Amino acid sequence: MSVDRTKLLLDTVKRLLRRDATVHLHKIVNKTHAADLAVVFQFLTLREQEALFDLLDGVDQKAMLFSELEQEIFQNLTENMPAEKIAEILEQTPTDDAADLLGKLPDERAKALLDLMAKEDSEEVEELLGYDTETAGGIMVPEFIALKEETTAREAIEALQKEYVDVEMPFYLYVVDDHGNLVGVISLRQLVVVRPETMLKSIMTTDLVSVQTDMDQEEVARIVARYNILAVPVVDENNKLVGIVTVDDVIDIIREEATEDILKMAGAGEDLIESQSLLRSTRIRLPWLMASWIGGVIAFFIIGHFENSLNKLIYLAAFIPIIMGMGGNIGTQSSTIVVRGLATGVLDIKQIWNVVLKELVTGAILGFIYGLLLGMVVHIRYDMWLLGVTVGLAVISSMTIAALVGSLVPMVFARINIDPAVATGPFVTTSIDILSVFFYFQIATLLLHI
Amino acid sequence: MSVDRTKLLLDTVKRLLRRDATVHLHKIVNKTHAADLAVVFQFLTLREQEALFDLLDGVDQKAMLFSELEQEIFQNLTENMPAEKIAEILEQTPTDDAADLLGKLPDERAKALLDLMAKEDSEEVEELLGYDTETAGGIMVPEFIALKEETTAREAIEALQKEYVDVEMPFYLYVVDDHGNLVGVISLRQLVVVRPETMLKSIMTTDLVSVQTDMDQEEVARIVARYNILAVPVVDENNKLVGIVTVDDVIDIIREEATEDILKMAGAGEDLIESQSLLRSTRIRLPWLMASWIGGVIAFFIIGHFENSLNKLIYLAAFIPIIMGMGGNIGTQSSTIVVRGLATGVLDIKQIWNVVLKELVTGAILGFIYGLLLGMVVHIRYDMWLLGVTVGLAVISSMTIAALVGSLVPMVFARINIDPAVATGPFVTTSIDILSVFFYFQIATLLLHI
Repeated sequence: MSVDRTKLLLDTVKRLLRRDATVHLHKIVNKTHAADLAVVFQFLTLREQEALFDLLDGVDQKAMLFSELEQEIFQNLTENMPAEKIAEILEQTPTDDAADLLGKLPDERAKALLDLMAKEDSEEVEELLGYDTETAGGIMVPEFIALKEETTAREAIEALQKEYVDVEMPFYLYVVDDHGNLVGVISLRQLVVVRPETMLKSIMTTDLVSVQTDMDQEEVARIVARYNILAVPVVDENNKLVGIVTVDDVIDIIREEATEDILKMAGAGEDLIESQSLLRSTRIRLPWLMASWIGGVIAFFIIGHFENSLNKLIYLAAFIPIIMGMGGNIGTQSSTIVVRGLATGVLDIKQIWNVVLKELVTGAILGFIYGLLLGMVVHIRYDMWLLGVTVGLAVISSMTIAALVGSLVPMVFARINIDPAVATGPFVTTSIDILSVFFYFQIATLLLHI
Repeated sequence: MSVDRTKLLLDTVKRLLRRDATVHLHKIVNKTHAADLAVVFQFLTLREQEALFDLLDGVDQKAMLFSELEQEIFQNLTENMPAEKIAEILEQTPTDDAADLLGKLPDERAKALLDLMAKEDSEEVEELLGYDTETAGGIMVPEFIALKEETTAREAIEALQKEYVDVEMPFYLYVVDDHGNLVGVISLRQLVVVRPETMLKSIMTTDLVSVQTDMDQEEVARIVARYNILAVPVVDENNKLVGIVTVDDVIDIIREEATEDILKMAGAGEDLIESQSLLRSTRIRLPWLMASWIGGVIAFFIIGHFENSLNKLIYLAAFIPIIMGMGGNIGTQSSTIVVRGLATGVLDIKQIWNVVLKELVTGAILGFIYGLLLGMVVHIRYDMWLLGVTVGLAVISSMTIAALVGSLVPMVFARINIDPAVATGPFVTTSIDILSVFFYFQIATLLLHI
């Protein structure tokens, strides 16, 4: 559904809510895809959300909506609902989504709901809650099709008809040995084209990709993306198959990680939630600006230190913006290329010196071009060639340093396992500002003998 | 395969190449996944690539590698290969990948290769080449399973065994009417659990998501992501089914679009290609820095205009970095939130005034906090409360303007259908620099009567 169609749906729902047109609303909410309904919910008041939710027929429909809702909306919506009713719906919600929702609730509340759920379902959710949320274990679903090597194609298809009705991604059948260890995989497609009596072991692929429960979700996403697979099996430390990560969750991870990186680089938090209150969004952005503030105060003292030079040649002040601006912009270019390169796997931390050297040279070349240009403009305008040389050199130094700092810092952070995106935003920009200003005045003082 | 394992593979291949250990190499290249081999190729010389390529058994293996290779590598590798051989391999390459590779070759070369390919294959490729590369038509594969409504489950499975062997995503079967119009979809899973004589029309889902050939690829990706589907059918203007877009291509699109947005925002081009030569990467970044350079020159003239004020109070110069820095950083925060919000669909261009107002207020609040802080520091340090008020107000004005410009500009660009990511980088930063400096000196001149 396109943006326009979602907007149309929202408008229709709001109009019907105002008119209390229950019959019409009932029809709409029950035929709308849960993913679209979840978007509509973002723009409704709690009362309106509750009214729509009650119109959903059956627990299955409600469970599908649960799995699509934002955490905050889920929490508000269920606050005044009887716990038994919530538990009943959660039993039908895909295990990974139920675990996500419960994992972010206050511990007591989550425990109370788990106690009310059917034992089988709550156990599965609790198992998932035992893993780190950002690892393969935290994003997998524990429902999958696992059959023995001696199973025939006919028996496998029968198993699909009787058991495994809940499985989210029923297109791969995993083959396990007597200990539950993963030994092979067969696609449903292969299964239907062989003779019914064929044993799985004779057609399964044994050279298969799997991941361990503790693998970082970004790495899992990279594997699924690289091998173009629809689901990757997750095994524990003994190679026992414990779950699968499906491609739809991988898409969400790739999106979230990209958003997270972009926001972190700008020092604007990690999550892009439009509903974030003014106060909350202010609080998230406040600390990052502190880096910039402190940097500015330091730059102030640096310039104060060169007060004599400034007094003698007031023009110097007017070049501060261009020298800071050129450094800041090329620094952002360099760090962006490095951060994104590391995130997508195009760059490797082992190449640290290659990358930094390349950026340094690029910075120097671009610095030379723009420094020369500025120097010439200054010389023509003021007929002071030494001033021209000074600002030209300052641009070269600022841009070279910026490219160096902008590429080196994220590389080093990645090497010592700190998220390079965090390092890159205000921190790098501020360092570059300070260094640019300092070298500028140093060069001016030396060259102009002031 | 993790980064470390890829590195190990690369080292092994290089060592064996040096030793000319053909037998060993032959074994390795033929059991390595094409996706991994394509990564290894990025780090080899052309001669080494050619040696490995010749070791691949059979056309199928070579075709799989073709579909994973970067365009540049493909082009160099095939330059000295007999055209007949390339055409033969391209016949076996998935149609969408073959079209991508041929689409970027010089027209004459592409035509020559197409003429050598089997008619059926070349026609399919040519059809894809007729669509815009960044639309549903450009990214779809023309191979899919399409059956009539009266087909029974048994007949459908037989069709899978005999025809449709090339289909990439054989998990959805599409149902079409006599005119080839899309009327329903059935998953392979549904097919195997019903009785063999069931007709497709009695089990198919008719409420299905489809996209038109001219839909933008980002929109297609958003639909696949939202509805958690593995493939979306593509129809022409008459609702005739012409292809499918599969989830693995959607993953690539989401990744590329995120990278593109990030790089554009930093003014660092669109594509992240590590192999970009120094000269090429310098050329890509040069024009974006021009915006910053011109902005700096304008700021220079603005400050020159206030020369008298500066002469009387040299301190003013020392505050330029902090006032520019605070504005620049909060402006980047605002524009990043807006650009990413628009890209992920969290923000809607219809909400323009809500979003801009919220950013404006956030900017004003944060400006007030940091302005007050700076004003107090200045007052304490210099015992000049009017100077404190001046710089405090300058920080407030700079941060408020920055939040306004940073959110308004991408919103307006999106509204008039210009990519907001392009608008956001150097352009916004530079405007903010100029405005900040101007208002700072204006405030100083008025308040300090200088």
